[in-house]
Formats: sequence, C-alpha cells, structure tokens
Amino acid sequence: MAAEAALSDQMIGELRDLFGERISTAAAVRAHHGKDVSYHAAHDPDAVVFAQSTAEVSEIVRICARHRVPIVAYGTGTSLEGHIAALDGGVCIDLGRMNDILRVGVEDMDVTVEAGVTRKQLNHHLRDTGLFFPIDPGADASLGGMAATRASGTNAVRYGTMRENVLALTVVLADGRIIRTARRARKSSAGYDLTRLFVGSEGTLGVITEVTLRLYGIPEAISAAVCAFPTLDDAVATTILTIQSGVPVARIELLDELTVAAVNDYSKLDCAVAPTLFFEFHGSEASVAEQAETVQEIAGDHGGGDFVWTTKTEDRNRLWQARHDAYFAQLALDPTKQGFVTDVCVPISRLAECITETQKDLERSTIVAPLVGHVGDGNFHLVYLIDPENPKEISEAKRLNERMVMRALAMDGTCTGEHGIGYGKLDFLVAEHGEAVSVMRLIKRALDPDNLMNPGKVVRV
Amino acid sequence: MAAEAALSDQMIGELRDLFGERISTAAAVRAHHGKDVSYHAAHDPDAVVFAQSTAEVSEIVRICARHRVPIVAYGTGTSLEGHIAALDGGVCIDLGRMNDILRVGVEDMDVTVEAGVTRKQLNHHLRDTGLFFPIDPGADASLGGMAATRASGTNAVRYGTMRENVLALTVVLADGRIIRTARRARKSSAGYDLTRLFVGSEGTLGVITEVTLRLYGIPEAISAAVCAFPTLDDAVATTILTIQSGVPVARIELLDELTVAAVNDYSKLDCAVAPTLFFEFHGSEASVAEQAETVQEIAGDHGGGDFVWTTKTEDRNRLWQARHDAYFAQLALDPTKQGFVTDVCVPISRLAECITETQKDLERSTIVAPLVGHVGDGNFHLVYLIDPENPKEISEAKRLNERMVMRALAMDGTCTGEHGIGYGKLDFLVAEHGEAVSVMRLIKRALDPDNLMNPGKVVRV
Repeated sequence: MAAEAALSDQMIGELRDLFGERISTAAAVRAHHGKDVSYHAAHDPDAVVFAQSTAEVSEIVRICARHRVPIVAYGTGTSLEGHIAALDGGVCIDLGRMNDILRVGVEDMDVTVEAGVTRKQLNHHLRDTGLFFPIDPGADASLGGMAATRASGTNAVRYGTMRENVLALTVVLADGRIIRTARRARKSSAGYDLTRLFVGSEGTLGVITEVTLRLYGIPEAISAAVCAFPTLDDAVATTILTIQSGVPVARIELLDELTVAAVNDYSKLDCAVAPTLFFEFHGSEASVAEQAETVQEIAGDHGGGDFVWTTKTEDRNRLWQARHDAYFAQLALDPTKQGFVTDVCVPISRLAECITETQKDLERSTIVAPLVGHVGDGNFHLVYLIDPENPKEISEAKRLNERMVMRALAMDGTCTGEHGIGYGKLDFLVAEHGEAVSVMRLIKRALDPDNLMNPGKVVRV
Repeated sequence: MAAEAALSDQMIGELRDLFGERISTAAAVRAHHGKDVSYHAAHDPDAVVFAQSTAEVSEIVRICARHRVPIVAYGTGTSLEGHIAALDGGVCIDLGRMNDILRVGVEDMDVTVEAGVTRKQLNHHLRDTGLFFPIDPGADASLGGMAATRASGTNAVRYGTMRENVLALTVVLADGRIIRTARRARKSSAGYDLTRLFVGSEGTLGVITEVTLRLYGIPEAISAAVCAFPTLDDAVATTILTIQSGVPVARIELLDELTVAAVNDYSKLDCAVAPTLFFEFHGSEASVAEQAETVQEIAGDHGGGDFVWTTKTEDRNRLWQARHDAYFAQLALDPTKQGFVTDVCVPISRLAECITETQKDLERSTIVAPLVGHVGDGNFHLVYLIDPENPKEISEAKRLNERMVMRALAMDGTCTGEHGIGYGKLDFLVAEHGEAVSVMRLIKRALDPDNLMNPGKVVRV
C-alpha cells in the first residue's frame, strides 16, 4: 500500500502542522512499526507519529477519530501475537519519547511513569531508593505496553502480574478525552475497576499514556540456584509441591533438555543437559535459608541433583540474562528456522499432564520445539522452530499449537498466560470464553463505536 | 407501596408458577430484604424470590427483563451504603439458598462456591484441608456479596482484597444469559478482565451466582499481639514504618481510645484505654519471630508499650471477634444513637495527616465518632453516632463525612476503601473519578440497556 494512500492529504497536513518532523511516512519507519518479534505477518501503518505528552496523544486521537482512521499504540514492539500490526493501516502512535519518570513515592512504594518508560530504565532510576519494580517479561518492554498486554514473566509467582501491580492509568479514550482510572490508594471499592479493564486491553479501548505502579523493597537477601532433574515430570512435581507448601519462591523456571543445551551454547553456561529448574529466593537471610532448605528437600525427593548456588549479584544477573535470552538461544538451535512462539497456562494440578501430553505430540512430529516455563504459575511456552516459507511446517506448527491450547482449555486453563491475544489467538479467545466474548464485544463497541482503536485485535466486531 | 402494586398479576403469576412457595410478597419478608446494616433509608422490593440455582436466577432475570422490572441481588444484607435498597421496587433475588460448595481444589488451592455460601461456612468446610480463605470483612457475608462489593477487611494488607482473590465468576447478565468470566489458571492475558469488571460492580451489571476463589495454606505459626501508644500519631507512624520495612504483617488494626474503651466494655477485654494496634503475624515459627521482633523495635521507637501476646487459638479468636464486634461496641457507647458508618483510604504516606485532620474536625463537633482502621492499607472507618430522627445531627454527620472524603481525595485517596458506593456515595464517586465516570456509564448502558440491574447504585444513568 502506498504510504499515504489511506490517509488524506488534509489529515497528513493537520498532523504535520502539529508535529512537524515528528510525523513520518517513510517506508523504513513504517516497516519498523508494523511488526513485533513474533512470526505474525507485518502490517505497516500509513504514518507514525512520535508523541511527547498525553495532550499530544489526545490531539492525534481526535484527528484520527474525525477522519475515521485507525490508531495503533506502539511501545517497544516486543509483543508476540501481532498486537501492533496495523491490519487496516492508519496511524501508529509511538510512545517511546514519553519516557519521563513523573513521580517516585518512596514512602508509598509506588511510582508514576509515562507509558514509554521501560522496565530497565525504571529500575535503573530506582537504584538508590532501596525499591524495585519486579515484573519482568524478559524483553525490556515499555511499562505502557506491559500494562496494555497484562505482561508478567519470571517473578509473577511471587509478585503477581501487571494485573496486580498497576494502581492507576491515564488513558486517552477513542474520542480523545483523557481519563485517570483510579487514585493511588492501595485498595478501593469506588465503582467499576477501570484500571483492570484497560490492563490487558491491548490498545483496543484506548491509549495508555501514564502508569502508576506498585514498588517493592529490595529483599535483604537474594539467592538463586540451578537444579537438574532426571525427567520433566520430576521437575514439574517439585514445582507443584513447592507452591503447595507455601514457599514464597520468587522465581521457579523450567527449561527442558533442549533449552538447557541451547542456553549453554548461547550464553556460555555449563548446566547439566537435563530438565532443569532455575530458582530464586527473596527475603531475610533466615527466610531465604529456610525456603532453600524446604525446596532442596522437595527436589531431593524427586531425583533432583545438587543445587548449584549463585549468590554473587553478577553471577545471578548472568543466570537470569541467560534465562531471558532463552528465546534467542532456542532460535540459534537452527539458524535456518524462525520461531513460532506460544504459551498456555493451566491450574498447577494439571501442569505435569499438560506438559507430558504436549511433549508426546512433539515426539510424533517433525517440528522441534524447545520448552520454557514460568511453572510456578502453571504457565509454559513453546517455540516451534519453522521455516516461514514452508506452508507444511506452518500448518504443522498450527496443528500442534491448536492441540496444546485445546488441551489447556480442557484442563480449565487459558489459551495464553501472558502473551495475549493480538490477532494470533482470536479464535482461541472464543473457544476459551464462549458467550463471555459477547460481553467483551459490547464493551469494545461502547468505548470505541467506530472500531478505530487497534482494530482486529482481542475481539472481532 | 402496596406489595404487588408495581408488579403485574401476570408477572407474579409467572414467577409463582415456577417458584411456588419460594416467591414472597409478604411485608415482613420484603422489609427484611430492603435494608442493609447502615443508616440508609429502607426501600423494600415488591417481591422476593429465593433462588436455588444459576438457571433459576437466569429464569427470574428473563421474566423481569420481559416485564421491565428492576432486579436486586441479596446475599446476607450486611453491606453499608444502601447497596440492596430497592430504590425503584422490583424483585429481590435472595441467593442465600445457593449455599453449596461446588468443588475444593486442594492441589490448586482454590474453591468454587455458590454465591450464597458465607465466608465462615467456607472456612468451616475447609477445616481439614490445611487451607483457608482469608478475606474477612467482619460480617459473615456471602461470598457472592463480597465479590459484588469488592470486600476486604482485616487481613487484606497481607492477602489482598476480593479483587486479588477471585479467580472466576459465573454471572447472569441483564438479558438472562449466563457467562463464566475466566478459567481457573492463576494468570491469563486472554481478553478483557471481566472478572475484575464484575468484582465491585454491586449487582449493577449482572447477578453473580458462582465464585471461584484462591485459598491459602494455614500458616505454620500464627501469633497476635496488642500494643498501646501514647498518641494516634505514634500508632500510625508505627504502621507506616512496618509496611515500609516490608514486614509481611497479616493484620495491623488501629483502634482509637474511644473504640478501645467501647470494646473493653462490650467484649470484656482489659486493654489499656489508649490508641492501640492489634497485630497478627503469619509464617513459619522463625519468620513470625523475626517479624515480631522488627515490629516491636519500630513500636518501641514510637512510644509503644509492651506487646501483649495471645498465642492460644481461643484467645486469638476472642481478640479478633472483639475487633469484628467493634462496630456493635461503638454503637453501645450511646444506646440512644444509631451509626452512620463511612470509610476512606489514602496512600499510607498521608495516613497520619488524614487521621489527624479528621480528628481535629471531630474535636470541634458535637458528634461522637469512634475510629477503627485497617491501617496497613491506609484505610480507616468512622462511625458517627447520631439520632436518625434529628436532622441537625444527620446534616452535621454529612458535613463531617464530606470533609473527610474530600480530604482523602485531595491526598490522592479514594472515597471508599471497602464499603462501596451503593446509593450513599454516588456524588463522591463523581468527585473521585471525574470524566472516568462517563466510561462507567457507557459500560453500564452497554451491559444493562434498560437499567434494571440494581438501578440507582454506583452510577446514575
């Protein structure tokens, strides 16, 4: 599609008058904003505007609304289900320059940031306060994007997801009006929970421009350990018992044999090539010691080897960086392939069965698909390594994925624990929610009657 | 209003055909269902139907929708802002007979109950599982009602509120359709968060008929302590530092001098008559000891007296029963008066100032108003003791209340931490949320276009 074909000269003129050099219709800029890090096809926007304030976002939305042009909000482009693809063209609002940390409340242990601030930027800023923001989806995503996609990651098992950690949002609605969804009080029973409605709405109900988050004290003691197991089942059983014993583990991450080999290569680790758990414990010295002892006992009962401890900060960071790079390590297993990433989440009592059945499917397939999981939450990911030019491989990956999702749903799980719906899992959302999708559709229509906010994502209208 | 005046004979006939003796238009039954435990005026429904299943609730809603008759859901009637008043008459659906515990998931630490199950019934049922449900608003409320009002209570500081602890709901929509809002997975990024939308919606978007809840392991060690302070400020400062130190205190409750005196009398305690904190610590033996030591140090730095410990279960239960009965103890301070109850919640850094300013208002007034607070969350309650027949006292209580709410809002707090909006705080909701109320109204209209679900509550349409 030609750059400005879908946008009238008048509209481009209006935007250019207001934003000057901060609006671009250059092919490279558009292409950069039309594709996330997944296998989903790119759909470039017709123009990209780099906003610098909530008021500017409101102005862009008003102009788009007047011209009935779709709007896609963009943070860092690290989502995984085609969230930022401009399926119907339109204007992409890049929020990356809205990266001010507006207020740090040390006493209240909260912070308000502009949507473009990334999680690493925030934690760097907080480094002298004794506080940190735990939610950690791997990528150095923007906090606005993390709110919009209800992100979680490795330490959600202890600290919750964005659902639990967003206190309030500033949102630009589809007609350009600006609202704040809540106050900073830790709890409230004042009206409908608009904060949680916008968290996870993937830009389809409005554009998030500011985020107020909970912070946590940096634990007095942190230690991490690696433990190899004879089988995936043993590792999962250890996880389940750890959670059921009430150990407040901060991280408990599963890597299958394939992923351990990949990570060893990619990140120069020397883990035993076996199903493995990475642990992290937070608390006082005494509490961390107590947690570690309990978990070592449980692991020992399930054939777990010795815990390999990393207590030095730099070693620990290296371990978790390796975990975060697992996706790239997995891709490096076969440089001729690309990654078809997916995730599901099930009640923890069904986790072992869900993983075992999924592995059986993979054994019978030609597709290679390494596994990692935030298993303390019942959440795991597969990366099907495929050639995107090979329709057979794509269709085989889709078949395997559908079987896994339907299996998770049959276990009262969800079609996505943390990657979201985007346009990649629209049908699975219907399979999961049934009649309830009609309520989502009513809400979408009520808040965005012209279907201009990230159209084609979450729910079809 | 005559019993059946507002309901057509045809409609009553339809309901009677289906529900026989389980529909009542008797004045006493209607009166029982038209008033909660607050000072708000009673508004009786025209009929009460005792439902026994989700399908029956759906049937009642369909009949009401066809006849355009309002519907009010009723659990135990223990709400505090007029939530169950049938302002426009109509049919009250009493869910009290829907009291089956449908499924206990010991391995997943969750449970599914019918909406009429009360929290005490649930915990009694769980007694041999090693699990418990912590949310505790004082009254033995129904879990459906607690979800509908986003209830919290004494141990929300550790375990969160109903917002954090409801995993999924079954809801009958305004047209009688039945939806389930989510699966049992601990986290999900699959679509809009309908669970959180219905939690706290006070029956205005649908009728909650089943609730899936998180459970927790009963801690290995529990201990409770009472500590008196020279001033309210000292007690609040101790609270703030405890929270900021990251001590995972399970309960931290403030009682002012007046309330301590009232509780001593009413519940036969012998606490020193002074501003007082009630604490409870949960964890392993070592962790509880460590928490207690930290908090005693903090309290000591703020003039706190010796901790009076209760470790025996029966003594601890007696202490917390006394705390739960504080409202009745406060009322007993002056048997000629009734209670005008209210609550606000502020960021904890502003809590001392909010309480001090509020106490100054009270010192200048003739109204007596004892104070209790779930202060770990920044949440506190006043009970203005008034003669409801005396317009001057009512108007003075309203004036004081308005000043307190506006003070909390000016501190970025909320007009209600846990009591809800009902029809008592409609104007304060607007003061708190401004433009965002229009979004609530859009949602209300989308889900309940004929305004039949608990009309006149939360938002005016």
